[in-house]
Amino acid sequence: MAVQTVASTSPTDSPADSPAGSSGSAEPSLGAAVALSCRECGTRTALGPHFVCLECFGPLEVAYELPAGDPAGLRERIEAGPASMWRYAPLLPVPADVAAKPNLNPGFTPLVQADRLAAELGVTGGLYVKDDSGNPTHSFKDRPVAIALEAARAFGLTTLSCSSTGNLAGAVGAAASRAGLRSCVFIPDGLEQSKVVMAAVYGGDLVAIDGTYDDVNRFCSELIGDPLGEGWGFTNVNLRPFYAEGSKTLAYEICEQLGWRLPDQIVIPVASGCQLVKIDKGLRELIALGLVEEKPYRIFAAQAEGCAPVSRAFKDGSDVRPVKQPDTIAKSLAIGDPADGPYVIDICKRTGGAVDDVDDAQIVDSIRLLARTEGVFAETAGGVTLGVTRKLIASGALDPALSTVVLNTGDGLKTLDAVAPTARPSAVIAPSLAAFRDAGLA
Amino acid sequence: MAVQTVASTSPTDSPADSPAGSSGSAEPSLGAAVALSCRECGTRTALGPHFVCLECFGPLEVAYELPAGDPAGLRERIEAGPASMWRYAPLLPVPADVAAKPNLNPGFTPLVQADRLAAELGVTGGLYVKDDSGNPTHSFKDRPVAIALEAARAFGLTTLSCSSTGNLAGAVGAAASRAGLRSCVFIPDGLEQSKVVMAAVYGGDLVAIDGTYDDVNRFCSELIGDPLGEGWGFTNVNLRPFYAEGSKTLAYEICEQLGWRLPDQIVIPVASGCQLVKIDKGLRELIALGLVEEKPYRIFAAQAEGCAPVSRAFKDGSDVRPVKQPDTIAKSLAIGDPADGPYVIDICKRTGGAVDDVDDAQIVDSIRLLARTEGVFAETAGGVTLGVTRKLIASGALDPALSTVVLNTGDGLKTLDAVAPTARPSAVIAPSLAAFRDAGLA
Repeated sequence: MAVQTVASTSPTDSPADSPAGSSGSAEPSLGAAVALSCRECGTRTALGPHFVCLECFGPLEVAYELPAGDPAGLRERIEAGPASMWRYAPLLPVPADVAAKPNLNPGFTPLVQADRLAAELGVTGGLYVKDDSGNPTHSFKDRPVAIALEAARAFGLTTLSCSSTGNLAGAVGAAASRAGLRSCVFIPDGLEQSKVVMAAVYGGDLVAIDGTYDDVNRFCSELIGDPLGEGWGFTNVNLRPFYAEGSKTLAYEICEQLGWRLPDQIVIPVASGCQLVKIDKGLRELIALGLVEEKPYRIFAAQAEGCAPVSRAFKDGSDVRPVKQPDTIAKSLAIGDPADGPYVIDICKRTGGAVDDVDDAQIVDSIRLLARTEGVFAETAGGVTLGVTRKLIASGALDPALSTVVLNTGDGLKTLDAVAPTARPSAVIAPSLAAFRDAGLA
Repeated sequence: MAVQTVASTSPTDSPADSPAGSSGSAEPSLGAAVALSCRECGTRTALGPHFVCLECFGPLEVAYELPAGDPAGLRERIEAGPASMWRYAPLLPVPADVAAKPNLNPGFTPLVQADRLAAELGVTGGLYVKDDSGNPTHSFKDRPVAIALEAARAFGLTTLSCSSTGNLAGAVGAAASRAGLRSCVFIPDGLEQSKVVMAAVYGGDLVAIDGTYDDVNRFCSELIGDPLGEGWGFTNVNLRPFYAEGSKTLAYEICEQLGWRLPDQIVIPVASGCQLVKIDKGLRELIALGLVEEKPYRIFAAQAEGCAPVSRAFKDGSDVRPVKQPDTIAKSLAIGDPADGPYVIDICKRTGGAVDDVDDAQIVDSIRLLARTEGVFAETAGGVTLGVTRKLIASGALDPALSTVVLNTGDGLKTLDAVAPTARPSAVIAPSLAAFRDAGLA
C-alpha cells in the first residue's frame, strides 16, 4: 500500500527516530502517527509530549503514514464509521480502538445549508454554516481535546491541563472526567460566567490567573518546565502537536458533508490560528489521498477588531505584532500573541483568501442575523466569522457566486451577555386575550 | 405488506375518516400517519390541527399504518439513514423527504456508557445516560418541535407558537427561523436568563405572562379558540398529537444504540408526562414491528419535590391533584397540572416501575455527580432524573443488576444558577509558579 504524507508547511522525507516515547511509558500506539516533525526544518523526533524542535526551536507537528491507493475503499470505511470524529480515525494520531475508550466522542456536527442567510447576503453559490456548537461541551475544542486525551493516555500522563479563554477549559474538564483523569485548568480572571461555571462543574481544579490569556499561556509554559508540572499533559502546550490535529476533522467533515467535494471558500475565526492551519492541512490531506478532487479553494481568516494582530499584519504587509491588551466581547478569540499568526497569513495569501476584522457591534448584529435566518445561536466568535464574511462580500474579496462555508465554533449560551440586552421579551402581559390584543403582537 | 398499529393506551380498529385536513389546505402528506385517534374512546378523525376528540373530549394521538413484515430490512434502512431523528422517518408522521426540508435535524444524540457513574452508584447491569443536551437548541424539545413544524407546514399554518417553561420556546423560535415561519411564544415571567435570551434571540416574538406555566397554558388554549389565533400552530396544544410523537424517537435511538435491544429499566423526568408516555409507545412499536425482541422493561418517572403531583398520586394511590404554586429549581418540570399524569402512573404500574421525587439539594448534587463522573453537564431536569435514580436504587425499587438508561433532557448551560454558587475557581492567583505552589493545587 502506498503512503502519503502532508505537512503543514512543507513535506519532509526525514526518517523517523525510534518511536518510543521519552516519558518512560510503553511504546505509544497512536494509529497512523509515526513521529513528530518540525514545521520549520523538517527534523523528526519520536512521538511524545514534546512541542518544540530541539534543532531549531520550531513547532512540532504529527507526521503520518496515511493509507492511500484506494480512495473509494477509504471513503466507504469512513462512511460506515461512527457519527463522530472517530470515523476519521485512520487519518488521526489515535489508537484504532479509540471510539471504544471513554471519551466525549465529539464531531460530525451539522453542516447547515443556510439558504435564508444566503438570500440575505446575496450569496448565490451555496452558503453553509459548519455548526460546532453541537459538540458535547458546545465548542470545537472537544475535537482537539479528544486527540490530546489519547496522547496523554499513550504517554502515561495523569493530569490533563490547559491555558484557556474558556471553551477549552470546559472541554478539558469534561474529557478528563469522562476518562477518569485528574484535571487542572488555567483561565484569565474575568471570563464569562457560563464559561467559568462550565470549566469548574466537572470537578477538576480551575485556577483563575490575574492577567491576560497570554500571561496564562506563559505561566503554563513555565509550569511544564518545573517539577510541579511532572506528569501533566497541557493539551495546547506539550500535547499541542496532537491536540492541533483535532481541527483537521472540521475539514474532513465539511468535505464529506458536501458529498466529498472541496468548498470554494471557507471563513475561519482566528485566535491562535491553529484551527485555520489545520483545516488547510486537512483539505490537502483529502486531496493527497484522492478522497476529493483537487481544485482551488480560498481560506479567509476572521478576527475581532479589539484583538486583530493577524488582520493588521495582513493588511499592513508587516510582521504579526502582539496585542498587549485585547479589548473585545469575543473573548475566545482574545489571544494577543497568536502562535500560528504567520502561518495563517501564508495560507490566506497562498489560497487567494484574506484576513479581516469586525467590531463588537458588528459581532452582535451577526449573531442576531444568524439566529434569525437559520436558528443557529452562535457565540461571539461565530459572530466575528459571519461579520467578517459580510465585510468580505461587501469588499468583493469573497465571491458570492462561489460555494462558501462559514464556521461557527461555539455556542451562544456561553456568551449570553453579548445579546442579553436586546434578546428580551417583546411584552410582559397578564394572561388574558385582552392584554395580548393590547400588546399588538397578534 | 402487513400493517401494525400501536396506540398509547389501547389499539383500535376504527376506520379512518376522510384524510383531508380541515384547515382548507391540500391533503396533508405526513408519511405513515393516517388519522388522529382518541386515546380514550378510539374514535378516529382526519389529520389536522386538532387535539380533542369531538366524541368524548379525550386527547387525540396519531394513528399509523406502519411498515411491517421485514424487520431486518427496516433496521438496515434505518441504519443507512441520516444521523438525526429522520432515520426513523418511516415510523413518524412526517413526509418522506423531511430531511431535505429546512429544519434543525435534531436527534441521534449520544447514549453515554456511564461506567464511572455506575461504579459510584453500584450499578452492575450497565448504566447509560441518553444525553439530549446535544440537540440543536440543547434540549429534547427539538424533537417534538421538528414534527410539529412538519404538521404546521402540511396544514398551511403560518405562525409557530407554544406555551413553554423555556426549553420549548427556544426550540420553537429556532425551528421557525430555520423554516422561515413567524413565531410567537409564551413563557411564564421570571424564567432563567439563558432560556429567556434563547427564546428571544431567534427574532420571533416572545411574550412573558405574569403567572405560572399553567396560566400560560390556559391562555394559549383560549387564544386558539379566538380569531387572534387564526393560522397559528401551537406545537404543544393544537399540534400536540404530532408534537408528542417526537419523543418516540428517544425510545428508538436508545434501542438502536443498545444494538437493537430493549433496556431493562428507563428513568424519565416528568413535566406534562407526555415524553414518558411516548417513550413507552415507541418501545412497544419496536416490539410490534419486530425491530427488538420482546422482553419485560420497567419505566420509572422522576419529579422535583417542589412540583410532584404525579409522584404524590403514585405514592398515595390517589388521583393526580394539581400543584398550584410550583417551587423548584427544576423550572422545566414545573407543570403543576400535568396533562399526561394519569397515563404516567398507569405505565409505571403496568411495567413494574415507580414514580419518585427529589428536593433541590439532591438535584444540584446529582448535576455535579454526573459532571464529575461522566463529563455531562445536565440541566436541573437531568439532576432530577439522576437524583431519583439514586433514590430508587437506595430503596430497592430499581435493580442495580439490570441495564438502566437515565435521560438527560437538557443542558446545564440553561440552568447555570443551580450550580454557579459551587462551580467556581479553586483559586485566583498571580501568574507565577510561586503563587501556584502556595495555592496547594499541584
